Amino acid sequence: MFDDEYYMRQALREAQLAFEADEVPVGAVVVWGDKIIARGHNQVERLNDCTAHAEMIALTAAFNGIGAKYLPEATLYVTVEPCLMCSGALYWSKIGRIVYGASDPKNGYKKTTGENWPFHPKTQLSNGTMAQECAQLMKDFFARKRQ
Amino acid sequence: MFDDEYYMRQALREAQLAFEADEVPVGAVVVWGDKIIARGHNQVERLNDCTAHAEMIALTAAFNGIGAKYLPEATLYVTVEPCLMCSGALYWSKIGRIVYGASDPKNGYKKTTGENWPFHPKTQLSNGTMAQECAQLMKDFFARKRQ
Repeated sequence: MFDDEYYMRQALREAQLAFEADEVPVGAVVVWGDKIIARGHNQVERLNDCTAHAEMIALTAAFNGIGAKYLPEATLYVTVEPCLMCSGALYWSKIGRIVYGASDPKNGYKKTTGENWPFHPKTQLSNGTMAQECAQLMKDFFARKRQ
Repeated sequence: MFDDEYYMRQALREAQLAFEADEVPVGAVVVWGDKIIARGHNQVERLNDCTAHAEMIALTAAFNGIGAKYLPEATLYVTVEPCLMCSGALYWSKIGRIVYGASDPKNGYKKTTGENWPFHPKTQLSNGTMAQECAQLMKDFFARKRQ
């Protein structure tokens, strides 16, 4: 059986691809049943599009892949707390569950939404899975940037 | 000289295209100087992607069109108050100014952000331009849907 850590490790692999491409290292996977139906990593620099976040790419890939525009039975794993944009996208997707790794006090959704729930009322949320590894990759990235 | 109403009328033309395609009728244009550099209308049904909102499409078209991923000197005109996702995208774009027409108490960003400012600190915001026309198109759409 696969658990949250297994899928978060897959999201981390996506984040590592972003890191190697000199992108802010955030990765995401969408899981339906026990199958990964979509993957995404941050491609803001490559696509020259500040909306090309890991979650947006993974969601759009999931919609295309399964031919549905809602994902009530799916789980999105993402290495870092979603920003406001991605939280809004997750709202529209009606995704069943969100699991994120590291918190992001600077750009995470909570900074703007405060105590308000930005997701669909039925969406479940977990965080902290492999948080240290997810955060470390971000730290390594920004340390390299500052060199 | 062109004024806000001129550009909002262009955004309304986009919204009309959405209406005719049986999409929730929201339209947007991005203006740089006095030139419209990108247009977009809601294509959620056609693309089978709940993130394909007018603003997302117009922003990505603008980034592609001018080869920049920030739009600090541009204005986005959109017929209806942006949702949380689109507000987050506008934050990342660092857009100079946002003008929206009709308010959207159900899905507009204010429902979730409350008193918090979701946009870039330098972004200016106006609303109410041609609000009645923008809202009427939405009302006509949902009235038709209920028939």
